[in-house]
Amino acid sequence: MSWTVDPDALESIAIGAGILGTGGGGNPYLGKLRIRTLMAQGRSVQVVSVDELADDAVVIGVGGIGAPTVGIERLPRGTEPVEAVRALEAYAGVQADALVSVEVGGSNSIVPMIVAAYTGLPVVDADGMGRAFPEVQMTSYHIYGISPTPAVLCDAHGQVAIFDRISDPRTLERMARVVTVEMGCRGDLASPIMAAADLRRTAILHTLTLSRRVGDAVRQARRAHGDPGQAVLSVTGGLEIFRGKIVEVERRTTRGFARGRVTLTGLGPYRGASMAIDFQNENLIAWRNGQPVVTVPDLICVLDMESGEPITTELLRYGYRVTVLGIPCDPKMATPQALAYVGPGCFGYDVVYRPLRERLAV
Amino acid sequence: MSWTVDPDALESIAIGAGILGTGGGGNPYLGKLRIRTLMAQGRSVQVVSVDELADDAVVIGVGGIGAPTVGIERLPRGTEPVEAVRALEAYAGVQADALVSVEVGGSNSIVPMIVAAYTGLPVVDADGMGRAFPEVQMTSYHIYGISPTPAVLCDAHGQVAIFDRISDPRTLERMARVVTVEMGCRGDLASPIMAAADLRRTAILHTLTLSRRVGDAVRQARRAHGDPGQAVLSVTGGLEIFRGKIVEVERRTTRGFARGRVTLTGLGPYRGASMAIDFQNENLIAWRNGQPVVTVPDLICVLDMESGEPITTELLRYGYRVTVLGIPCDPKMATPQALAYVGPGCFGYDVVYRPLRERLAV
Repeated sequence: MSWTVDPDALESIAIGAGILGTGGGGNPYLGKLRIRTLMAQGRSVQVVSVDELADDAVVIGVGGIGAPTVGIERLPRGTEPVEAVRALEAYAGVQADALVSVEVGGSNSIVPMIVAAYTGLPVVDADGMGRAFPEVQMTSYHIYGISPTPAVLCDAHGQVAIFDRISDPRTLERMARVVTVEMGCRGDLASPIMAAADLRRTAILHTLTLSRRVGDAVRQARRAHGDPGQAVLSVTGGLEIFRGKIVEVERRTTRGFARGRVTLTGLGPYRGASMAIDFQNENLIAWRNGQPVVTVPDLICVLDMESGEPITTELLRYGYRVTVLGIPCDPKMATPQALAYVGPGCFGYDVVYRPLRERLAV
Repeated sequence: MSWTVDPDALESIAIGAGILGTGGGGNPYLGKLRIRTLMAQGRSVQVVSVDELADDAVVIGVGGIGAPTVGIERLPRGTEPVEAVRALEAYAGVQADALVSVEVGGSNSIVPMIVAAYTGLPVVDADGMGRAFPEVQMTSYHIYGISPTPAVLCDAHGQVAIFDRISDPRTLERMARVVTVEMGCRGDLASPIMAAADLRRTAILHTLTLSRRVGDAVRQARRAHGDPGQAVLSVTGGLEIFRGKIVEVERRTTRGFARGRVTLTGLGPYRGASMAIDFQNENLIAWRNGQPVVTVPDLICVLDMESGEPITTELLRYGYRVTVLGIPCDPKMATPQALAYVGPGCFGYDVVYRPLRERLAV
């Protein structure tokens, strides 16, 4: 089913995608401002289901790459992702029929919409993670065999790097990352090019709709003075894993990523307990009283306790009162094949992935 | 005047370009083997003067990029530079009429010949340094305003990175370097694309002929049991600055470069004296008894004392008896404009460039 992103839908998507972005995927406020400006100029964005596309329709993935901490300080020029997509089309000799997100996130769900607003192309209701992850190879597209190149990286100065004939998406990640660092830790990457049939096979589907529903639920809870965390769980499944106050944030920007750890002290039913969450752009692993309770690829979402506003990793700071949710990942991201790309071991943790309900039943 | 590179000319060029490569520019032995193999297959290489080309003829620069220490351990597949040139032609929508070296060197004078042998294109008797330097922006092409991009980097696996719309050659250096590191510290770079008229204006001319003459002189000295160092000086000008034994080599491969220092103790007329030469792929600055006697952009050439064989920085080792020559750089590389790219300060030395004859007269 096709639908138009109106200002109300946009408001919900920014919240919902920010929450499902699990700490990363770019800043929701900036993402919303960018597309709102284009809408005010009379441009519109059409969302289509992958089923509405012919099997051989050409779909191009596009999103921001870099460190979220830099993303809020060094604002984009605005047309980088459009230039990246156009350069990819020219290089590969194809014409995009539609665009798709590589990950859900307050900014990276919006980036394809920005290209859509400029070009008139529709955005597919899907993404490559069902959440956000920090590295290029961590998409269901790559996990399930879509060629990672050609790929085009473009920065705010219009500088372009094109990568081709790279069969391993991890190699693309390494090369694109070091160039992004030289670009000042912020750029937009257009990749991969997929037939709609391949997108259907590999993507996490209907995640724009899900983001919108999550945002709708949060806004409804706000109006009703309800609990926004419970509202999110009612739409997504999952469990509340903590409520507390941020008491410490360690943060460093290294090799193109925002890395660190946030420490919480419990409030309400969690009084006396502690939680630590490690992040690399996104939240990776949540430790409650020193034990892992949720790990990648399951989602760890940090929300402002009162408003339900997503608190992305670049915004974490002392004193915030937050609700932490654990949400099961899409089944496509928890297969043995996927865990080789996105399991805890891929981030250096000697922890075996167990679905969060299994962990928390213990 | 146009001439064909026959096996005899090749033998001389390998020696001469190795010497003028001032410690870098790639290993002369490997360079020679690569092109000799192609010649044995019946392929030939034509060298032309830039004056023989129409003003609007398209000339493409091509050469190896990486750390020489890696270059002798990780051998090329062989066709990387051909693929880099072909990919650059396809990307830019041009057809090369001729090829040119970016720097003189035992390997980098040969790389355009390899492409020539495969494609039948001629090689221009010129280069962009009149010696070798470690970084992309350090060519007379870039110093005198040729656009650094588009540029294509290709590695032994056929992996390709294309850079475009980069106006500052230093930015291209940084981006190409970090990708080269990810490629395993070895690749071939096709760049820049020049009209022959621009090449004529910016290049260091006749350096293949000069390399051949230097090699001829060394071989003649060997046959006559003469002094190869003096033979080199008779062709190039310059001064002998040391004779000695290598007593220490410090070496590290960092950020894509072979960096280090070689220390010599004097022999013959230099007994009791010491020399230290700092290098970053190429020899940068020679200190005699602690005082700088030759600095970039002038050439510091280390030769085996008996055979005159160039000893490139990756081959430096304890016990070698060597002659060290200082050779004046081409005037194009010593202008204020050029010194901002290749003067001692560009390598972190708080030393003002003074031509070597002026330094050594003190």
